[in-house]
Amino acid sequence: MSDNSVISTRVRLARNLKDFPFPCKLSPDGMEKVIEKVRSAVKNSNSSIASDFKFIKMSDLTEAQCVSLVERRIVSPEFIGNTEGRALLVNSDESLSIMINEEDHIRIQAITKGLALEQTYDLVDKLDTLLDESLDFAFSEKLGYLTQCPTNLGTGMRASVMLHLPALEKSRAIGRIAGNLSKLGLTIRGTHGEGTEPKGSLYQLSNQVTLGISEKAAIENLKNITSQLISQEELARERICSNIDIQDSISRSLGILKYAHTITHDEALQLLSNVRLGIVSGQLKDVPLLTIDKLMTDVEPATLMVNSGKNLSAAQRDVARADLLRKALEEV
Amino acid sequence: MSDNSVISTRVRLARNLKDFPFPCKLSPDGMEKVIEKVRSAVKNSNSSIASDFKFIKMSDLTEAQCVSLVERRIVSPEFIGNTEGRALLVNSDESLSIMINEEDHIRIQAITKGLALEQTYDLVDKLDTLLDESLDFAFSEKLGYLTQCPTNLGTGMRASVMLHLPALEKSRAIGRIAGNLSKLGLTIRGTHGEGTEPKGSLYQLSNQVTLGISEKAAIENLKNITSQLISQEELARERICSNIDIQDSISRSLGILKYAHTITHDEALQLLSNVRLGIVSGQLKDVPLLTIDKLMTDVEPATLMVNSGKNLSAAQRDVARADLLRKALEEV
Repeated sequence: MSDNSVISTRVRLARNLKDFPFPCKLSPDGMEKVIEKVRSAVKNSNSSIASDFKFIKMSDLTEAQCVSLVERRIVSPEFIGNTEGRALLVNSDESLSIMINEEDHIRIQAITKGLALEQTYDLVDKLDTLLDESLDFAFSEKLGYLTQCPTNLGTGMRASVMLHLPALEKSRAIGRIAGNLSKLGLTIRGTHGEGTEPKGSLYQLSNQVTLGISEKAAIENLKNITSQLISQEELARERICSNIDIQDSISRSLGILKYAHTITHDEALQLLSNVRLGIVSGQLKDVPLLTIDKLMTDVEPATLMVNSGKNLSAAQRDVARADLLRKALEEV
Repeated sequence: MSDNSVISTRVRLARNLKDFPFPCKLSPDGMEKVIEKVRSAVKNSNSSIASDFKFIKMSDLTEAQCVSLVERRIVSPEFIGNTEGRALLVNSDESLSIMINEEDHIRIQAITKGLALEQTYDLVDKLDTLLDESLDFAFSEKLGYLTQCPTNLGTGMRASVMLHLPALEKSRAIGRIAGNLSKLGLTIRGTHGEGTEPKGSLYQLSNQVTLGISEKAAIENLKNITSQLISQEELARERICSNIDIQDSISRSLGILKYAHTITHDEALQLLSNVRLGIVSGQLKDVPLLTIDKLMTDVEPATLMVNSGKNLSAAQRDVARADLLRKALEEV
């Protein structure tokens, strides 16, 4: 089993400060106090990672900058719904971040390329320990960490892997798999938000149970199921990738990405997904997987605007997106 | 005005032997005699071009070889409908050919790349003179050359240019133009046979009037109308080629042709047509026009089989066609 079906691994911990009401009950003044406490906890810590963090008041950002943070999976969509009283701490390579005053006071997140559940958990665990040194977390001996939403009570941990499952999707096996996973306390859904159609064959598999289970056990559980899913994807891949029509669509997708002069987000994602399948199935030898994975985020509309430094209309974005893709794949 | 909208020029002369009934009334034995007479006339002539001709009994060819002759525009579709008693003389570069026992005893044809009406007429005229030295043509002082179908009476000449008119087609101006042309004694139609939808934006413009007009006058008339059509195409081209969607479809077409692993005839022709538009409009700098024009014939199903030396199923042809296109455009 190879792990090239996994694009990234993410772990987040929900924490709240004992002496403050949950954010939804918090006054603007209270929110500022929470922000200041968390900011100081990071700033004044002795840890080497602390100096790498940048502090961002969410209300200082443009709409495109906010949406791009969601597209890059640094913050949740809910977090940018209202930017007042909210702040973000994020390190330079964006692998570590702390959302302040999302649903809970503190959401610690680590994100790593590829399949790396233990390592990613270790990263959030270290940051959690750092914060714990100077902050009083709401904690019950019986329940564990207290969170606003009962689904996070206990470990407060949500671990997830972003999977690329084109072969299972093309074989129409995803629906059945999703049904089985929910019985195991796991959820799989398209990465473009709950309730939306999966795009680019990207799926997020995450644990749902946080109460009565240790972090390690939850991570282990997720890791095992991920392995099984990867194996199933690899089997389905072998079946479909000997088909000339699949090989054709993979190769054409690369051709179109290299030659288009205007391209929508959804088409770009679909073509990148096809090319990614071509790489992992061995058909496309010269295309770096990391280039494609990076492009899958860089073609997102707000990220495209933030990277170009301009506000662009939808039509202008389609042209800028095609330019970006042609340039990135020029040497391929 | 440039003449890059013209792919080829063709002139054919219909001739019949005085001492034989028209082919439709001719016995198998009579057909053989006509074949032998024409063959000898070429073989025994003193002309240098005579030695370059190959003699082909149509009934010796496979079906694919017959159809490929039609695709390469060397013979008419009618000629291969029944191969008994029919023969072909064709020179090594296939620019000159003589169909024996088509609708008329003799159909002399010359085909030249690009716009070359006078030169092409000169070629058939020379071959006509060569045959006239030893054959007695059915000729009336009043009517001119006698032909089976009255629409060919007189000069027996049909001159045509194969035009690539993507801009006029995309601007939906072709219908109006076709109506006007018929009033001028000319016909424009798709190159893939009467009554079929034009494919690859390829049109054949030809003279219809053969009676009461000299060859030179008919050629001059066709030349003038061709010039006007080219100018209209160039105007339409300027209008549409600044459009990003047209530029996109041109560039994508090249990308798909360079990357497809299976492709149907109709799609290939459409994409080649788009690329051709890209070349003549100046968007695509590095693609040779002659490569594209040659591919437009080489992607035809029977020619594909003849060139590969194998009988292929439709699915196999689609793969072979994609291989051919990828290879031909590799360096581009």
